[in-house]
Amino acid sequence: MDSARISLLRAQYHSALYDDLLPFWMTRSLDREKGGYLHCLDREGSVYSTDKAVWLQCRQVWMLSKLYNTIEKREEWLEAARLGAEFVRRHAFDKDGRMFFSLTREGKPLRKRRYIFSEAFAVIAFAEFAAASGEERYLKRAMEIYRLMLRLAATPGLLPPKIIPSTRKMKSLAVPMIILAATQELRGHLGDSLLERTAAACVEEIAGHFLKPERRALLEHAGPKGQELDIPAGRLVNPGHAIETAWFLMHEAEHRSDAELREQACRILDWSLELGWDREHGGIFAFVDREGKPCEQLEWDMKLWWPHTEALYALLLAHRLTGDDRYADWHARVHEYAFARFPDPEFGEWFGYLHRDGSVANTLKGSMWKGFFHIPRALWMCERLLERMETP
Amino acid sequence: MDSARISLLRAQYHSALYDDLLPFWMTRSLDREKGGYLHCLDREGSVYSTDKAVWLQCRQVWMLSKLYNTIEKREEWLEAARLGAEFVRRHAFDKDGRMFFSLTREGKPLRKRRYIFSEAFAVIAFAEFAAASGEERYLKRAMEIYRLMLRLAATPGLLPPKIIPSTRKMKSLAVPMIILAATQELRGHLGDSLLERTAAACVEEIAGHFLKPERRALLEHAGPKGQELDIPAGRLVNPGHAIETAWFLMHEAEHRSDAELREQACRILDWSLELGWDREHGGIFAFVDREGKPCEQLEWDMKLWWPHTEALYALLLAHRLTGDDRYADWHARVHEYAFARFPDPEFGEWFGYLHRDGSVANTLKGSMWKGFFHIPRALWMCERLLERMETP
Repeated sequence: MDSARISLLRAQYHSALYDDLLPFWMTRSLDREKGGYLHCLDREGSVYSTDKAVWLQCRQVWMLSKLYNTIEKREEWLEAARLGAEFVRRHAFDKDGRMFFSLTREGKPLRKRRYIFSEAFAVIAFAEFAAASGEERYLKRAMEIYRLMLRLAATPGLLPPKIIPSTRKMKSLAVPMIILAATQELRGHLGDSLLERTAAACVEEIAGHFLKPERRALLEHAGPKGQELDIPAGRLVNPGHAIETAWFLMHEAEHRSDAELREQACRILDWSLELGWDREHGGIFAFVDREGKPCEQLEWDMKLWWPHTEALYALLLAHRLTGDDRYADWHARVHEYAFARFPDPEFGEWFGYLHRDGSVANTLKGSMWKGFFHIPRALWMCERLLERMETP
Repeated sequence: MDSARISLLRAQYHSALYDDLLPFWMTRSLDREKGGYLHCLDREGSVYSTDKAVWLQCRQVWMLSKLYNTIEKREEWLEAARLGAEFVRRHAFDKDGRMFFSLTREGKPLRKRRYIFSEAFAVIAFAEFAAASGEERYLKRAMEIYRLMLRLAATPGLLPPKIIPSTRKMKSLAVPMIILAATQELRGHLGDSLLERTAAACVEEIAGHFLKPERRALLEHAGPKGQELDIPAGRLVNPGHAIETAWFLMHEAEHRSDAELREQACRILDWSLELGWDREHGGIFAFVDREGKPCEQLEWDMKLWWPHTEALYALLLAHRLTGDDRYADWHARVHEYAFARFPDPEFGEWFGYLHRDGSVANTLKGSMWKGFFHIPRALWMCERLLERMETP
């Protein structure tokens, strides 16, 4: 990638983050009346639901704190992060220490689910906000929630299983993947041998149980010991998840200076694009069956925003780490696809959901799943990486 | 509708049912080895998953028994129905009397959910199979399951709520709708005042709590007393459900000779097509927001097979009951749309999932949701109705 291209990309990502994404969310999502963020925003940015997803509250706290900690000490970012952190602290925890999935605008609990993802996002939110605000108690809480999350994930029976385990035992890539991500974030704030041990265990589980080199696929589900399951869930690949996992593993490889792990992460990226890229219309599928059998997910062939933002960063990082031009070419392909279709030139922010052919399927800008997270995170990470690439 | 058109439609529906649907499922789905039906079939009819959905086991038993009871005493239909009825009786019930949602091929339980739909489909399956086989015990079981289902639906707390009820109480159209359908089926086999009382209560709840004439919409969710909820779930219309409900209510109106209820049912049909028909590409949307706000369902603008089969019958019946040509025109429109896109001329049966523009999104012929039910039921009902229309 030549320096002109690097500068051009940097300027584009910078502008997308600071001139589009940040103003869109800073002017619309902060709920100064009830706390936290309103994130169910339609095309024009109007609120179509005041329900609050705990994932998205936490993710926005994390992102705003991260910008404060790494880009500029802007008081408005810190205050906006505090709005979410306090809302989560006050309302998102059940009496048993576990967290809810969604809350009303006022913070009353709506749903509690059987997963550890609310907890994982609270860990990264509280750790980053502690660093931004200087309030140590948030880091202490992050570590408490982290330990709870590890216990919930490691102890069968603590969370009600979806599938009756005496009939079928199945585990999800999402679990070691999210624990690895939370661990990597915590490690930026704390030295604790538990973090290194946990990161190592996650990498081992991902590479040992979900990665199938002979199939050129990182699978979404597996048996307890990594057995392949010949059912739709067992054949399922979520290319966005796999690509996101690839950059988590590249970060881990850098942390450990582990060339073999870096190689493995690059293979996951290669194979996920091989399986996940739509050769007919371009873009990354939401789900694919590794054998080409029918997917159960109705949205399997839709093009969602977040696998593309994950790919933008993963490909740029792979190019930076390996020097391989193949990744620069892939990056250009994903970049052209994404920037031509997802950003809304009229009202700002990105569309989240395209049909297979690239036409817009849903004009919402935020939902219970889409908030101030994947796009700004990718833009922020890409810009920092491009900055390093500018000054070799 | 002139007699040539009636004969043409009758021949087309007859052929679709007996020359396409029945052979497709009779040659592929019967699991003579383990019992029940294999219904996860790909485009060519090959099994891509051996998991068995209890809904689809029951629905296939019902459909095969219904054909046996109403069309012809074909031994192969009865034996195929028995394969499913025995499998359900042996494997689909938990120790508490409630039913599972899915089973392995061998019948081991995979999932149990917090709804009464497995029970509702077992009621109609067992009642119809009892009539086909002459085995009284199946009718007795149907009535037991029916009473359990009513108790589960009427007693808060017996089924774990999805949304924490102290924060938000919300009920679903699907519940009175499916109870009404099960009740109407049972009434064909049993005289019991409970059935009349229950049917009346369902009609009252649907018309009183979910139907909003001022909005020209039958809503999918409402508060406990029919309050409108200004959240995405509260604004949601599922046109397929609403259209299906319309013909359940037309049947009820015929049963009661209730002209006012017939009118109401026809209005539901009108409004659901008004809201649900895609004026740009044709076809019926899977979900719409009654105010045009974003839907949370990623598949909202997909064209699914079953709302179209429901509409085929509902429109034909509305035309028959009212003589209004508008319904004949609408029927022709839905018929043209559906028969041009859903049937697979190469491998038989119907595609289930089209993109908004009518292109095929998923080539599967059967899944955990799509089995031998909506298409044959609509074809069978339409043909019988057309037969009556042929001989005025």
